[in-house]
Amino acid sequence: MYIIAIHGGAGLSTPEDLGLEREKVARVALHASLQAANEILSVGGSALDAVIAAVSVMEDSPVFNAGRGSVFAADGVQYMDASLMTGHDKKAGALCGVTTIKNPIKATRVIMDHTKHVMLFGEDAQRLAEEHNLDIVEPQWFHTEYRKQQLEEAKKANVIILDHEKASSSNNSKGTVGAVALDQHGNIAAATSTGGLCNKRPGRVGDSALIGAGTYAQNNTCAVSATGHGELFIRSNVAGRLSALIELAGMDLVTAADQLVYDELPEDAGGLIAVDKQGNVVLPFNTGGMFRGVLKEGQLPEVKVWREE
Amino acid sequence: MYIIAIHGGAGLSTPEDLGLEREKVARVALHASLQAANEILSVGGSALDAVIAAVSVMEDSPVFNAGRGSVFAADGVQYMDASLMTGHDKKAGALCGVTTIKNPIKATRVIMDHTKHVMLFGEDAQRLAEEHNLDIVEPQWFHTEYRKQQLEEAKKANVIILDHEKASSSNNSKGTVGAVALDQHGNIAAATSTGGLCNKRPGRVGDSALIGAGTYAQNNTCAVSATGHGELFIRSNVAGRLSALIELAGMDLVTAADQLVYDELPEDAGGLIAVDKQGNVVLPFNTGGMFRGVLKEGQLPEVKVWREE
Repeated sequence: MYIIAIHGGAGLSTPEDLGLEREKVARVALHASLQAANEILSVGGSALDAVIAAVSVMEDSPVFNAGRGSVFAADGVQYMDASLMTGHDKKAGALCGVTTIKNPIKATRVIMDHTKHVMLFGEDAQRLAEEHNLDIVEPQWFHTEYRKQQLEEAKKANVIILDHEKASSSNNSKGTVGAVALDQHGNIAAATSTGGLCNKRPGRVGDSALIGAGTYAQNNTCAVSATGHGELFIRSNVAGRLSALIELAGMDLVTAADQLVYDELPEDAGGLIAVDKQGNVVLPFNTGGMFRGVLKEGQLPEVKVWREE
Repeated sequence: MYIIAIHGGAGLSTPEDLGLEREKVARVALHASLQAANEILSVGGSALDAVIAAVSVMEDSPVFNAGRGSVFAADGVQYMDASLMTGHDKKAGALCGVTTIKNPIKATRVIMDHTKHVMLFGEDAQRLAEEHNLDIVEPQWFHTEYRKQQLEEAKKANVIILDHEKASSSNNSKGTVGAVALDQHGNIAAATSTGGLCNKRPGRVGDSALIGAGTYAQNNTCAVSATGHGELFIRSNVAGRLSALIELAGMDLVTAADQLVYDELPEDAGGLIAVDKQGNVVLPFNTGGMFRGVLKEGQLPEVKVWREE
C-alpha cells in the first residue's frame, strides 16, 4: 500500500474570487503533482523521494505560492521557505529566505543529507545548493504578472496579504504547497514550500520553514504539512502538536486532525494534510477552500478545491 | 510568589577543562543575571521583562556563548539566534543570523511587539532593531580572544564544535543562555539566546531561534528554554514536547522534564530549564554540567555548574 496527499494552500473564499482560469490551471498542476509522486511510489520508491517530486511540480507551476509562483515581499523580492522531514529516522532539512533556488524543497534535502545542520538561511543555503548542482535561476524566473499586481495592490491598501484574510480575498495568495506520503516500505515523509506572505517584511520566516510548525514526521504518529496563518501556526506548534495528540493523547489521526483544525485553531486559520503508517489520510481545513489531492495505490487520483465537492 | 531560573548552556565535561578562572567569571555573571530579574519580579514586574533582563546580562558577559561571548562561524563572523515567548497570550518573537545587535533577545521583543511576524532573519532583523533604537555595535564588540582561538583550533581539527561533544571538551562552547520566569501575576515566559556552534556554516539556524524547539511558553503547561545539540532538539521538537507531555500526557512538570531529558534524549544531548504557574521549577541536564541558577521569592539565589553540588 502507498499513498500520496498534497496541498496547494488553504485560503480562498469563492470561485469568483479565484477565477475559473486559475482554478483550471491549479487542478491540472495538482494532478501532475500526484502523478509525479505516483511514478516513484508505484515502483517501490521512498516517501521522501515522492514528497520532493510532488512539491517540485507545484513549485514549478506559476499558480501556487511557492517556487515559481511565489509572492513578492515588500521590497519587491521573492523570498522562499521550505522544510522536509522523514518519519523513520526523524531526519530533517529546512531553509528560509532563499531567492535563486528553482526548487527550494530539493535544497532542503541537500541540507539534510550533506550538512550536520537541519536549517540554513539565505545566501549560505544558496551557496550549498549551487555546490550540489541544483538549478539556480535568475530572479525573473519567479516573476509573474499576477504576483506583481498583487504586490502593487497590497502596497496601495497597505496590508500584508495573509492567505486566509477575507479582506484580501480577491488577491488571495493561497499560501503554501506541501506533500505527505506513505511508501510501500511503511515509511512516511512530509514536505512544505512557500513564497510566504505578499508584502511581508523581507526577513520574515514563516511556519513552512520550521520543523514542528509547518512540517513534522515520525513513523509512529504521522507525517504532516500545514498551510495557513504562519505566525499562528508557529505559536501553536501545529505540526508537532498533531504528532503529539496522536502519541501522547492517544488519538487516532482523524480525531487528532479534526480537533486541531476545527476545535483548536480559529476559523479561517488554514489547514493541513497528514498520513500515518496505517494508511489513514486526512486533509482538514477551516477556510473557504484548499487546493488538495490524494492518490491511493490502485485508486483514481482525487483533486479538490472547494469545501463542497 | 515569583521565580526566575536561568541557564548559561549545558555541556562541560570537567572543572579542569573549563578552568577555574572562567568558572568564577561565569558564577558571578549568573548571580548578576538572577539579580537583574529579581529587581523586576520583586516589584511586580512581568515574567517577560524579567527573562529579557536576565538573558541580556548573560549576553553582555564574554563567558557565555551568546551576545558578546558568541562563538565564530566558519567564515569568521559571529551570527546570533534568539527567541522569546509569553505564556499568557502565547505571543512570540524570534530571529536568526544577526551580527550587529548587542542584545539579540531585546530584538525578539521588538519583533513580537512591533511586527505582524514571529520570526525575522539577518539584515532585516537588524534594520528593525535599529529603527527601534536598540544598541547596534561594531563586530569587534563580540570579538574575544578565547573564541578566536576556539575557531582556529576547530578549523585545525576540522570539526564543528557542538556544545556537548566530548571530543571538543577542552574548547567547549557551552551553548546557549536562557531564562524562564513566573511573575506575581501568575504569568510565565521563556527566552533563549545563542551564538550557535563554533565553526558552523554561516547560515546555520539552531534550536535557540525556533519556537517549539528551543523556546516555548503556555500558561497552562510551562515556560521552557533548552540548551544542547540544536539539530537534535529541532528534530525532537523539545520545547513544544515538554509542554505537550504536561498538557496531553497529563504529567507534572518534574515527571515530564525528567522523562524528556533522561529517558528520551540521548546521553550528553543537553538540558533545559522550565517553570510552571504552580511555582515548580526544574533544571535537568544529561551532560557533565550546566551553568544554571534559581531565585525564588524570599530565598537566597542558588548558582550551580556541576552535577554534584
